[in-house]
Amino acid sequence: MEPSSGSRDAGPAITLVAAVLPAGGSGERLGGATPKQFCAVQGRPLVSYTVRAMERISWISDIIVVVSPENIEIMKSIIEKYGHKRVMIVKGGITRHRSIFNGLKVFAENEFSNHLLQKPEVVIIHDAVRPFVEEDILSKVVMAAKQHGAAGAICPLVSTVIASAADGCLDHSLERARYRASEMPQAFLFDIIYEAYQQCTDYDLDYGTECLHLALKYCKTNAKLVEGTADLWKVTYKRDLYAAESIIKDNLSQQVCVITDVKEAVAQVGFLLHESLKSQIKVEAISISLSKNDSHLQNIFSGQCYNFVCVNDKKCAIQETQQLVDMLEKSNIALLYPVVLISVHLDISENISFSIGMEELTRIKKFAREVKKKNILVYGLLIQNK
Amino acid sequence: MEPSSGSRDAGPAITLVAAVLPAGGSGERLGGATPKQFCAVQGRPLVSYTVRAMERISWISDIIVVVSPENIEIMKSIIEKYGHKRVMIVKGGITRHRSIFNGLKVFAENEFSNHLLQKPEVVIIHDAVRPFVEEDILSKVVMAAKQHGAAGAICPLVSTVIASAADGCLDHSLERARYRASEMPQAFLFDIIYEAYQQCTDYDLDYGTECLHLALKYCKTNAKLVEGTADLWKVTYKRDLYAAESIIKDNLSQQVCVITDVKEAVAQVGFLLHESLKSQIKVEAISISLSKNDSHLQNIFSGQCYNFVCVNDKKCAIQETQQLVDMLEKSNIALLYPVVLISVHLDISENISFSIGMEELTRIKKFAREVKKKNILVYGLLIQNK
Repeated sequence: MEPSSGSRDAGPAITLVAAVLPAGGSGERLGGATPKQFCAVQGRPLVSYTVRAMERISWISDIIVVVSPENIEIMKSIIEKYGHKRVMIVKGGITRHRSIFNGLKVFAENEFSNHLLQKPEVVIIHDAVRPFVEEDILSKVVMAAKQHGAAGAICPLVSTVIASAADGCLDHSLERARYRASEMPQAFLFDIIYEAYQQCTDYDLDYGTECLHLALKYCKTNAKLVEGTADLWKVTYKRDLYAAESIIKDNLSQQVCVITDVKEAVAQVGFLLHESLKSQIKVEAISISLSKNDSHLQNIFSGQCYNFVCVNDKKCAIQETQQLVDMLEKSNIALLYPVVLISVHLDISENISFSIGMEELTRIKKFAREVKKKNILVYGLLIQNK
Repeated sequence: MEPSSGSRDAGPAITLVAAVLPAGGSGERLGGATPKQFCAVQGRPLVSYTVRAMERISWISDIIVVVSPENIEIMKSIIEKYGHKRVMIVKGGITRHRSIFNGLKVFAENEFSNHLLQKPEVVIIHDAVRPFVEEDILSKVVMAAKQHGAAGAICPLVSTVIASAADGCLDHSLERARYRASEMPQAFLFDIIYEAYQQCTDYDLDYGTECLHLALKYCKTNAKLVEGTADLWKVTYKRDLYAAESIIKDNLSQQVCVITDVKEAVAQVGFLLHESLKSQIKVEAISISLSKNDSHLQNIFSGQCYNFVCVNDKKCAIQETQQLVDMLEKSNIALLYPVVLISVHLDISENISFSIGMEELTRIKKFAREVKKKNILVYGLLIQNK
């Protein structure tokens, strides 16, 4: 069985693939007490973005997050709060390699769980602090690992690398073009990387950091190197948290879909909104009944990530919004980044002065708090036109 | 003559030091048309921050910015707009090394100017896209260069470095602890680095990037390696621009100094402002007459960077602000980051309804536009209390 092509739809379909995310780092380079994987970026811990990036990929079966013992409860609460699925927490060791080894053991030994997880053919190893990983590179390393036994993403070196002599002076500098930075994700045939860890000396377990090196040293497997993209970078310093925050904000507001029902007065507002927004942002406007299963809307959900403006004049303002959220959830849209949903309640009735009461407002607020955990940010807007 | 200690006040005092900033990069890794050194960060080109970082250090005599021919006019306008001093623009070559060589020639050859600049004992080479360089590290590399002939800042490697074989597979990985990333600033005895460039083969001029390597190869000078800090990083990718923007914003709002005149009603406002701000921000409140040369205020100017709230009830609102700006400029405060100056005009007169007219407002606006170029952001606030 050959792996399928790396298209976003198929992925390496037939192969059983699992992922191990070491998340045991101490964050000392950030200069802060909170390890970087638990730092909040736009109010949500970094590790949750990375888990989501894995979770949205249907062909990854199990996601093992390895955390240090003192952070197990924190990680549990993150999984619960953000509704992560297919995730298992494993207690880390005192070094990176020992943590990854622990993560692999859940597929081979009874040490960490009552029931063994099904052993994958290929295992992805990816850092919890690299949240912007895309399906394309994951698919590439998995397929390369199937063929070569091991594979890893690489990037060009940003700085020249040098070796220092014992006196603290330059010994030699490396020719930049001949070397690459080894990044994540990496992928391995499970049997190869597990064998490598089993053979691994204590010295390597304690002082090494590079999984590709272990596969080479202990299993004579020369990993295939796959050119990665710039967004594979690792959140290491405080400035990287800033950058991550800006990228996530950037990803928030690329395009918007205006949804109105078919009533003329409401559809007209949708049209005007489209006209006034289209010079500044990619905008799509559709008039449909949300209660029907509209194929156009389904296409929007399954395509690129949109924000939504939902215009209605229903008595019960929350109902339409609830329907849209349900559809969003059912569509398995990749909610790696927050989706903004602005619910515009159009009050064009001539009789009643306030069609939304305090009770309704409280319900909307509660609803918004609830769906925020699912990465959907709901805002309400009341427009009165008498 | 021994170099003095590296304290912020003294610097390597007796040595004549110049700086060459290669700014010829094309910015291809940013994925944008504008080379990164000219990208606006908080409305100001990145290169201007780096020039300012050099310029505020009194013991650096000349700053040579090397730009590609098509960007000379842009660079000229930046120098004029932001009032940079001691800066000379030099036309770059087609590679990094050729550009740096051109920059060095202004001290030794008549090629680029009618009059030779005085040849420095030590020359700093620093990238235009590393804006957060501090005096401390500059001082350290200069003094190490005096002693060893060459010196450069280094940082730990963030990723493992690997070498690939011809078939695109891993050949070997380097032991991370033995290697360092070579960063900037670097410093050299002028005669050594100039000699190295003169001896340099065309191949090295075209394909090399590392100045420390040239000093070693052509002058047998093993550079002293100086541990740098995390803020020496190079703006390379778009995410780095985001990070730079956040760091600059962060540096904006650390502390505030509230200045009022000695009149009781005005001083009282200063006191209340202090009380309400002190739980959120480091705040200092002083009551003085700005026309006097107050030593307390001078200490604030020459110490850490403050923002200012200047409360007054003078008829002419702009006058006090103007005085404060003059004092700021005269004090040689290191305006690497914008200083915010909020001018609060307190209108407690009982007779006239509007003590600030449109004319005055226009003057304030014009004044604010003018001083913005000097990195002082003036905002006006009128408070009426009848």
